[in-house]
Amino acid sequence: MRIADLETPALVLDLAVLERNCAAMAERAKRHGVRLRPHIKTAKSAEVAAIATRGQFGGLTVSTVAEAAYFAGHQFRDLTYGVGIAADKIPALAAIQREHGATINLIVDSVAAITAVAANAAKEQSIFPVLIEIDTGGRRAGLDPEDPELLAVAQAVAESKSLKLSGVLSHAGHSYHAHGSNEIRRIAEQERWGVVRAAERITAAGLPCETVSVGSTPTAVYAERLDGVTEMRPGVYTFFDLDQVGLGVCTEQDIVVSVLATVIGHNRRSNRILIDAGALALSKDLSASEFTKDVGYGLIRPVRGAVLPPVHLFVAEVHQEHGQVAAAYGEPPWDDLPIGAKVRVLPNHVCLTAAPFDRYHVDRGDGLAKVEWEKIRGW
Amino acid sequence: MRIADLETPALVLDLAVLERNCAAMAERAKRHGVRLRPHIKTAKSAEVAAIATRGQFGGLTVSTVAEAAYFAGHQFRDLTYGVGIAADKIPALAAIQREHGATINLIVDSVAAITAVAANAAKEQSIFPVLIEIDTGGRRAGLDPEDPELLAVAQAVAESKSLKLSGVLSHAGHSYHAHGSNEIRRIAEQERWGVVRAAERITAAGLPCETVSVGSTPTAVYAERLDGVTEMRPGVYTFFDLDQVGLGVCTEQDIVVSVLATVIGHNRRSNRILIDAGALALSKDLSASEFTKDVGYGLIRPVRGAVLPPVHLFVAEVHQEHGQVAAAYGEPPWDDLPIGAKVRVLPNHVCLTAAPFDRYHVDRGDGLAKVEWEKIRGW
Repeated sequence: MRIADLETPALVLDLAVLERNCAAMAERAKRHGVRLRPHIKTAKSAEVAAIATRGQFGGLTVSTVAEAAYFAGHQFRDLTYGVGIAADKIPALAAIQREHGATINLIVDSVAAITAVAANAAKEQSIFPVLIEIDTGGRRAGLDPEDPELLAVAQAVAESKSLKLSGVLSHAGHSYHAHGSNEIRRIAEQERWGVVRAAERITAAGLPCETVSVGSTPTAVYAERLDGVTEMRPGVYTFFDLDQVGLGVCTEQDIVVSVLATVIGHNRRSNRILIDAGALALSKDLSASEFTKDVGYGLIRPVRGAVLPPVHLFVAEVHQEHGQVAAAYGEPPWDDLPIGAKVRVLPNHVCLTAAPFDRYHVDRGDGLAKVEWEKIRGW
Repeated sequence: MRIADLETPALVLDLAVLERNCAAMAERAKRHGVRLRPHIKTAKSAEVAAIATRGQFGGLTVSTVAEAAYFAGHQFRDLTYGVGIAADKIPALAAIQREHGATINLIVDSVAAITAVAANAAKEQSIFPVLIEIDTGGRRAGLDPEDPELLAVAQAVAESKSLKLSGVLSHAGHSYHAHGSNEIRRIAEQERWGVVRAAERITAAGLPCETVSVGSTPTAVYAERLDGVTEMRPGVYTFFDLDQVGLGVCTEQDIVVSVLATVIGHNRRSNRILIDAGALALSKDLSASEFTKDVGYGLIRPVRGAVLPPVHLFVAEVHQEHGQVAAAYGEPPWDDLPIGAKVRVLPNHVCLTAAPFDRYHVDRGDGLAKVEWEKIRGW
């Protein structure tokens, strides 16, 4: 069977492009002399993780307990849980450490969190390495590098018998809103400077700080230097998407995953073509519209081997399982997209688009639906 | 264990409110003398379907092949597939009809779709009842009630040996954007008039038209008369959400499902409280903001038994697994929501919020985590 004949909606993954993106990021990490710990929340797949960690030390970043359990069960035993940890998750994470011989690095940014986490870890007789989250401008979570609280937090970790102070970590999430590569370079340096400064303060206080971790795809791609940094944790580079194209971090040819959909209707009164991929299959994320006009919930592209006329087609509106495709100007090409025709939708923000699917249909260059990769979802 | 102690994010369902909402809609259907075929794409759960069909004929509306298979496997054998059908789904739906003795009513709005669907149904030696979709103002899918094409479509279904013309169907999706109950009443009458008019034209042409189906929660709640209609298919009324509150279709006390989340950080520089429910657990749907200020990705409410000060708190920003809670004015109540505290998030649009979860934690009034209902997800 051809991929183009699959029941829809379905996630299609271009293997050659995935391998190219992963090799390019591995090369960047090597050039900077840092370890690469891919954030696998984008792909949620052991096969993707295997490619993304080729030639690397094998560590991953995860964002849910379900991902931690799945990847530990697939031989990825050095995990960083990339969301400030809630103490109630400690029993589940301790079980994963025990059952799989895994190490799960936690992140915290307050003494209150440390106290609760340490108490639960002690109850589980489990020891967790801990990274202190540093805010390098993203203004989401983390302590300012110069925050007086930083040393109190570091001290609290160091004093706990069930925790082990292992370093500092930052995510320059504001790089996703940068306009132009110069601004991304500036943010990358801000991210680097912030964690290195925090690490210096901790070390100067006589405490350990082995890991100095940064991570976002835009800063990983544009960073000019990573002196003092020991690892990076980009994620979306594995797949890329229209948001990253808009940011100038990649081109459309670097996008790995698209949603296969079927034309289910022509609405000539509203100049819309209906497809069977809607809000659940594409997500309602509109990030790319910060940079790009007429991108909607995704851009329409032909399936492998097919050709579409050069009309700018995008998913202008979504309902739960319906997508409405519009042309940027005038009518859509009705005759080129008859009822039953298949199209691919390039994702606006692939982390959210891929999340609800339970498998990738892997295109190895022949367009044949022979290989499926399962993935984890949920929490 | 108390529901408030569950690992988060988790979906919590208030059983008493669910039963009240379902009983109220059943009563409306009875008053109008129409059958109730709940759209179960909101809940995706056999237990919810059992409550929603109490005292009814047992038919359901579904929106994916996965839902069709799941509900047919749970004794719900009269299903309407509520999205214009793609012929490639016929083999899977035919298998469900065969294996479960189910009947799956399909919807179409073009001769092209009928031709392809009939051919695949014939290959499967399966017969499908077919409803013709009518556009009564929603401008998504369907034929205008006066469209000359309508009779050609009806004729094409009637002539096919593998299809059986069973009626007409409409979804007044534009009721979701109505301002005020008078406008919803007007749309309900427009929806009723449109399908009844289409049914009259089909019947006048000597063709069968047994089912005359309307359906949207706002129009189901506000319809003054449903003369000529035989069934209604509302869905979101089972759970309700902030979008429906904004529309004036329900009050906050009618909301059944909320997302349990844990406070994982305090960001005093940005006046934000971080929780572990983000874009995946809440969805990025912002429908309710069409009607309501400061609703964001959901409103913050205490867990059962707890109290919060009267500060308007909402999820102002989401990342994949982080939510940022803000107060409408000034600082959030830091001391009332310490690190580790649990909150409930009322969903902006519950169909999308509930979709990725695999279970409901059912609160039967005691706040205890004793009952879980599994649900289907994906396609």
